[in-house]
Amino acid sequence: MDKTAVAVVGASGYTGAELLRLLIGHPRVQLVGLYARRAAGERLPDRFPQFAGRLDLPIEPFSVDDVAARARVAFSCLPHGESSPIVAQLYQRGLTVLDLSADFRLRDPAAYATWYGHPGDPLCREALYGLPELADPARPFRGARLIAVPGCYPTAALLALSPLVRAGLVAAAGIVVDAKSGVSGAGRTPSAATHFPEIAEGVRAYKIAGTHRHTAEIEQELGTSGIVLTPHLLPMSRGILATCYAEPTDPARPAEAYADWLAAFYRDRPFISVVPTPPDTAHVRGSNRAHLFATLDPRARRVIAMAAIDNLVKGASGQAIQCMNLALGFAETDGLDAIALFP
Amino acid sequence: MDKTAVAVVGASGYTGAELLRLLIGHPRVQLVGLYARRAAGERLPDRFPQFAGRLDLPIEPFSVDDVAARARVAFSCLPHGESSPIVAQLYQRGLTVLDLSADFRLRDPAAYATWYGHPGDPLCREALYGLPELADPARPFRGARLIAVPGCYPTAALLALSPLVRAGLVAAAGIVVDAKSGVSGAGRTPSAATHFPEIAEGVRAYKIAGTHRHTAEIEQELGTSGIVLTPHLLPMSRGILATCYAEPTDPARPAEAYADWLAAFYRDRPFISVVPTPPDTAHVRGSNRAHLFATLDPRARRVIAMAAIDNLVKGASGQAIQCMNLALGFAETDGLDAIALFP
Amino acid sequence: MDKTAVAVVGASGYTGAELLRLLIGHPRVQLVGLYARRAAGERLPDRFPQFAGRLDLPIEPFSVDDVAARARVAFSCLPHGESSPIVAQLYQRGLTVLDLSADFRLRDPAAYATWYGHPGDPLCREALYGLPELADPARPFRGARLIAVPGCYPTAALLALSPLVRAGLVAAAGIVVDAKSGVSGAGRTPSAATHFPEIAEGVRAYKIAGTHRHTAEIEQELGTSGIVLTPHLLPMSRGILATCYAEPTDPARPAEAYADWLAAFYRDRPFISVVPTPPDTAHVRGSNRAHLFATLDPRARRVIAMAAIDNLVKGASGQAIQCMNLALGFAETDGLDAIALFP
Amino acid sequence: MDKTAVAVVGASGYTGAELLRLLIGHPRVQLVGLYARRAAGERLPDRFPQFAGRLDLPIEPFSVDDVAARARVAFSCLPHGESSPIVAQLYQRGLTVLDLSADFRLRDPAAYATWYGHPGDPLCREALYGLPELADPARPFRGARLIAVPGCYPTAALLALSPLVRAGLVAAAGIVVDAKSGVSGAGRTPSAATHFPEIAEGVRAYKIAGTHRHTAEIEQELGTSGIVLTPHLLPMSRGILATCYAEPTDPARPAEAYADWLAAFYRDRPFISVVPTPPDTAHVRGSNRAHLFATLDPRARRVIAMAAIDNLVKGASGQAIQCMNLALGFAETDGLDAIALFP
Repeated sequence: MDKTAVAVVGASGYTGAELLRLLIGHPRVQLVGLYARRAAGERLPDRFPQFAGRLDLPIEPFSVDDVAARARVAFSCLPHGESSPIVAQLYQRGLTVLDLSADFRLRDPAAYATWYGHPGDPLCREALYGLPELADPARPFRGARLIAVPGCYPTAALLALSPLVRAGLVAAAGIVVDAKSGVSGAGRTPSAATHFPEIAEGVRAYKIAGTHRHTAEIEQELGTSGIVLTPHLLPMSRGILATCYAEPTDPARPAEAYADWLAAFYRDRPFISVVPTPPDTAHVRGSNRAHLFATLDPRARRVIAMAAIDNLVKGASGQAIQCMNLALGFAETDGLDAIALFP
Repeated sequence: MDKTAVAVVGASGYTGAELLRLLIGHPRVQLVGLYARRAAGERLPDRFPQFAGRLDLPIEPFSVDDVAARARVAFSCLPHGESSPIVAQLYQRGLTVLDLSADFRLRDPAAYATWYGHPGDPLCREALYGLPELADPARPFRGARLIAVPGCYPTAALLALSPLVRAGLVAAAGIVVDAKSGVSGAGRTPSAATHFPEIAEGVRAYKIAGTHRHTAEIEQELGTSGIVLTPHLLPMSRGILATCYAEPTDPARPAEAYADWLAAFYRDRPFISVVPTPPDTAHVRGSNRAHLFATLDPRARRVIAMAAIDNLVKGASGQAIQCMNLALGFAETDGLDAIALFP
Repeated sequence: MDKTAVAVVGASGYTGAELLRLLIGHPRVQLVGLYARRAAGERLPDRFPQFAGRLDLPIEPFSVDDVAARARVAFSCLPHGESSPIVAQLYQRGLTVLDLSADFRLRDPAAYATWYGHPGDPLCREALYGLPELADPARPFRGARLIAVPGCYPTAALLALSPLVRAGLVAAAGIVVDAKSGVSGAGRTPSAATHFPEIAEGVRAYKIAGTHRHTAEIEQELGTSGIVLTPHLLPMSRGILATCYAEPTDPARPAEAYADWLAAFYRDRPFISVVPTPPDTAHVRGSNRAHLFATLDPRARRVIAMAAIDNLVKGASGQAIQCMNLALGFAETDGLDAIALFP
Repeated sequence: MDKTAVAVVGASGYTGAELLRLLIGHPRVQLVGLYARRAAGERLPDRFPQFAGRLDLPIEPFSVDDVAARARVAFSCLPHGESSPIVAQLYQRGLTVLDLSADFRLRDPAAYATWYGHPGDPLCREALYGLPELADPARPFRGARLIAVPGCYPTAALLALSPLVRAGLVAAAGIVVDAKSGVSGAGRTPSAATHFPEIAEGVRAYKIAGTHRHTAEIEQELGTSGIVLTPHLLPMSRGILATCYAEPTDPARPAEAYADWLAAFYRDRPFISVVPTPPDTAHVRGSNRAHLFATLDPRARRVIAMAAIDNLVKGASGQAIQCMNLALGFAETDGLDAIALFP
């Protein structure tokens, strides 16, 4: 069976490296090019020593012609704003493109001015929001050529909340998402905020009170507004735990109804487990799985729903590959069946 | 000036050691005895090497007569259920007693059966809840002889929320406290849940949905019920961050009103700072300070209030010393003026 | 192609779980049974939630008959002293057995009294020491039925040192191995020494000055005595870095000769990379690779050789699978080709 | 008693902040000015929130006249090369100056070209090397006006080794110092090497084989050459553990002789403890203490000596204050008597 040629654009950061880690083990694809701006000219192991002896490819300067000539599928890990023009070109050249930036996640181009401070690309109207477990059956992945891979916080929050909201088990209004993230979500570029001694042995929130851009994605996909998203930075490299609070539509419903519904909703989905106790991000590290949990606080009449994912896998690169698998008609789990690395 | 003789009962765990660390530097007290059950017979540095060369005291088996003969003040760091009979005896012998267990925190003895599964000690009616910044002026600390030192989660949650609730800025109903704790809050006894590889690089909630006993304290002190308390365990040793969500009574009130009110409320309190950005537990580590923050999420019409404390200091041993200072008429900051250790 | 039936005995600890993680992805084997003493009766995901939805097997009480009836290959992750009688029985029943304990690593049964305080099993004379990269060509792995999988410290130290000693580039006498280990090497049983707050933000040595049992293995395989092995415990879960010091036989030899020789020696070995800068354990986490480095300190006339491995993979379970692959004639990298999980 | 006016130049980094933390609690000094280049114009709590509510001083641009007008004592935390001209000016204006950079640590100005790549300041001949426990009695601290505060690695290595070398218990030749450091030693400026995800869960050596500049200091103070210094970066913020290997001059000397001699040598020193088991950096965190240990590996005939310090305290700012105390005739422990913060 011929392998599909894939290229990674923006290969110098953590999501790029994570794509490479996963694509190497993918049975249906062949990596044909790595592209980056600053890192162009380096070889991959110079930048990411974990590839030493395994993938000694050069990192090349990006060229649409070059990518289009070599690859049928392209992943873009470029920053938002930089990604859309390149993605648009690759898309117009006929490639299937998976964009890990935010540039195509919002369906309304006008929303970009509000949330991102720059105009949206009109092409975002055509993009498919790449959260397969929650996708609209009317818009199949098979054959999709432009997929906007969701953000890490939205993936976690939506997996925990969407089935409950859609089924009317909880109110769509008044939802609070208190999210805890590892530092790799901030990327590989060093900053004062992510310097080791500033992170170790501490925890803090950031971009709170409606200022984190992922709020827009969560609201769009839940079909509501007024979501509270409070991201926190924790002293760990990977993982997102979303602890979500919502009001039950019927406070008399038994506590187990919420987890039961999640289990039923995701029954056939290969990457979702509803676990019997509050999930731990350590148990999904390095895997494309989400561990979910939900219950009712009967005294407070509040539903608590949780999702633990690896922000670089199910929250980014793994989900991108899952989307590619579905778009190209591969098995959904191809290249994604590794067990989490614990401890 | 004569120094006051103090004893520590239950000196073998983290809160006991933290008391010793702070008491050594206290200008008005003299440590006259350390008592423990299992560790009796050891010397302090055998158990806690940080005291090598500094406090080479023996850990002795507990005896009421012995403590009463030597000390005027006793701190109890015994586990709940074990603490109350010993505290009661020391109290009856005329000592000033600061109890770090939960045995006297709830004012209603009957509540203990519900939350702790054992009867309450009727003496709890006489105990003063030792959160000085929020104390009832009608019940002064000066001269108090039985003080129940609050739990770590309640200290953080109440410092952030109480002024807002009392002033009617937020509703007392429908409050969510999403709390993030370091592992030292679980004590020094090893367990599967606190084994290093089970904690590192992960985060999880525990005792959720109204099952954590600190819920009762928070509700008692806020004068409400139906609080959601969701404790999480983080890969750090010290620190609690309480991220609290509440409904504003007037959504049109400006966002800065909440922090302004906290700053006004705590204006003269030596251990409280309202900080300009979301607080980080790393910035209070080892100190008795609380860093607070509050704002409004205008889109969601929700107030977000945060407190960062060191769970072993302001959340336990430091607060106990603060209470002692007030009870004995010392300066409130005696022995507690160290700057946080950062990084 | 029929898959080979394998069983894991002692499946309740970290090395057991790591074997399962790797065996699930192995193309040539079929897992037919998990056995443990204390955990018998549980299902695997109860004990290791990372397997939720992936491997919902029961953990069964061990029985030789049962294992022999089901499996052709058995891995033992039992503690030393407990492992040898069970391994001996399985071996006598004709299974290929890979023992991850120390019970068959030393070739001289009498050495066990000295180092382990109990008699050795005479069968240890027949066991093959399972470090394939350094194996004696006269004792091929193909067909071996009893393989003693090396300890984690010896694997790291020997990979860095053996080629240099064998080639006479460094003296066999006077070698110092300063080793830094993650905490998972201590197993999953909680202890005061491995309680999270006792490990975080600190580093200490343990079992120094010739008291760590792995010293015997290193000396046996280097064919020398008087090795200094100083193990240190670091605040991380996985990884061993061995920093080794040895005297060059010719101080005038250029510094690059040492790395060059390592590269030449391991030229065709799939799991070894000689890297251009001192290796980081983070770059091999979760993989069966070793990153090596060597140079001369010309001022001090000392050779410094380093190896970074994942103690649970190349230092235990991955190496066990590598040995099985060779013993059964599979490709050496079967099931072991994952890239390290970084960050 | 009048307090001595002190200023801190280079107050924007970790050693500057650590000085401030300690000086605030010092009974004999008054902080009269903070100076920095980049951070000038900020207030201290903007840069270091741990000072919120405690030390709300402005950070001012440096001026010799200003410092000389206000302060009698100045600490310089400027980088090497930048520090010496400023220190020289302050010294010439009659201040007592404690330089935390390397600019005056080497006694031979010519050595700077070799190790630092820039000329040395001839004034280095007059500076006192500020390691009080090992100082030459012929050069008293009392009255010294220019003190070069030692580096963190030299402090740890010398405390463990110097008494043994001086007494002839170990050979001065052939010493290996394998050192493990927390990340704060690299300062507060973010870099790719100290980005949280690059450090967490890993360990690596850097500047090995005679390339770390602290090698020169260790050799100078031991009066030898050919020391091997191998620094390692660990996933922790503070702490240095130096594990030192040396040859005993008499292999028949009992193992306890080495620790006994260290204990005797440091008998009256307030900051040194010889501990009964290998020391842990966690037990000296935040304190000016050193925990030492030494023994013989009888099989290998090698002495192993260890020192654990906090790199920012005994390895930098605490030691600077200790030197100031001695220079000004204060009690040696003034401002430095805090117990380590553990856990």
